[in-house]
Amino acid sequence: MTFAFDLATAVTDDGNGVYSGAVHDGWDIRGNANGGYVMALLASAMRSAANRPDPISITLHYLAPLPPGDFEIHTQVIKQGRRFTTVSASMMFGGREAVRAIGAFSEAPAVDDGMQHHGIPLCEIPSFEECMRRTENGEAVPLALMSKLDMRLHPDDRGFAIGQPNGIPRVRGWFAFADNRPNDTLSTLLAADAFPPPVFNLLAVPGWVPTVEFTVHVRAVPAPGPLRCEFNTKEIQGGMFEEDGIIWDENGVLVAQSRQIGLIPL
Amino acid sequence: MTFAFDLATAVTDDGNGVYSGAVHDGWDIRGNANGGYVMALLASAMRSAANRPDPISITLHYLAPLPPGDFEIHTQVIKQGRRFTTVSASMMFGGREAVRAIGAFSEAPAVDDGMQHHGIPLCEIPSFEECMRRTENGEAVPLALMSKLDMRLHPDDRGFAIGQPNGIPRVRGWFAFADNRPNDTLSTLLAADAFPPPVFNLLAVPGWVPTVEFTVHVRAVPAPGPLRCEFNTKEIQGGMFEEDGIIWDENGVLVAQSRQIGLIPL
Repeated sequence: MTFAFDLATAVTDDGNGVYSGAVHDGWDIRGNANGGYVMALLASAMRSAANRPDPISITLHYLAPLPPGDFEIHTQVIKQGRRFTTVSASMMFGGREAVRAIGAFSEAPAVDDGMQHHGIPLCEIPSFEECMRRTENGEAVPLALMSKLDMRLHPDDRGFAIGQPNGIPRVRGWFAFADNRPNDTLSTLLAADAFPPPVFNLLAVPGWVPTVEFTVHVRAVPAPGPLRCEFNTKEIQGGMFEEDGIIWDENGVLVAQSRQIGLIPL
Repeated sequence: MTFAFDLATAVTDDGNGVYSGAVHDGWDIRGNANGGYVMALLASAMRSAANRPDPISITLHYLAPLPPGDFEIHTQVIKQGRRFTTVSASMMFGGREAVRAIGAFSEAPAVDDGMQHHGIPLCEIPSFEECMRRTENGEAVPLALMSKLDMRLHPDDRGFAIGQPNGIPRVRGWFAFADNRPNDTLSTLLAADAFPPPVFNLLAVPGWVPTVEFTVHVRAVPAPGPLRCEFNTKEIQGGMFEEDGIIWDENGVLVAQSRQIGLIPL
């Protein structure tokens, strides 16, 4: 079986570091590709260029919105190191650069190697089965992305979706695919930006909050099951907010930390 | 008066987006330039290329250690937007690329514009005067950088320096320059990596913990006085750790958030 996410993130190696592919329909929020999906697209090409399977640290700057359509990703291997291969990439879409990325790729290390310190409490959330699935048309805005995913929000954190934002800029939930594709390091990148922004629980009317920069550090290869996710925004000032994500696998292993900085209407 | 930090971060515009300068002696830890100083060097060239004063979000991947010596920084303006100018940069040193950077530059917004939310408690620390100054030769390792700075550590967090790590991977302190240079957004980048790594308070013997990736988001222009800083490491596994920094100015305004991911001996 070929899973939807793998089809949607497939790229063709055209040689000389250039990869072609398409922004697929259905992975968008109001017509523009989701930022986590875009990161997975870039990482798909970059890990091929690096010839290493896992994005360990990847940063994107978003330069233009991405409707469905064909793209080229121009990759450059900056350094082929023993531990990491560092790769830069530009996504060209509609005649201009839409995304610039840089990342370090490797094989994600075994979590139980070496020194251990775990100072982030596991996010408390009802079980996957006990949380309500987020649907494509259950909210004010049609969310095509939800047709591809099986995402469950913590019941306390979904007030924004029913016009009752709770004033706490936090969103917790579970991330899985609608077609049960197993999670891996590539899908973890999507999970890191697939949830509704925590700031929605502060806003009277949820609107578009464009991301300027988005970084994900992958800390381990996840187990295949649903990812346990928590997103917090702590500081809003000067028209900008940060959003930090923490992602665990179904066994409670920390698999990624993310941070993005975005714009909020002044 | 010309301050040491300004001399040490000066670059010459050679045209075509190329800037030349030198890694100055005295901004190092054991002979290699401090990562925050290196970020300030890159930002110095990138803000000139962007023709905008403040790094709003900047990410570096460190590819090689940097002893003192001449460099060229090759900048590329990726996008000149209304709100941000996005710039990429490569630092060439000794015939190879030592650093790759990407950043968004602008004028840092007034903090009191628009929506406000402040969810990070101000770091508790004795006053600047009550904290002990970190000296060049007061610890096991000579720290040339401390000759340039007037850094004060929270007394509870400096156990590592006297062979008594307290087991809590947190470092709090004040950042100022020895020559009283006023702080600004460029020096905030240095402050974000000038403190001893919080992991030192977990290690039997503090050693070199190389940074793979380092991102700083500047949230406001600081007041000129000492910066109040807090650094935490929460998760160590698979031979890697993250380190998050929070920086306030002397008035308690949040001026930057940083995150880096680094390697720890397995």
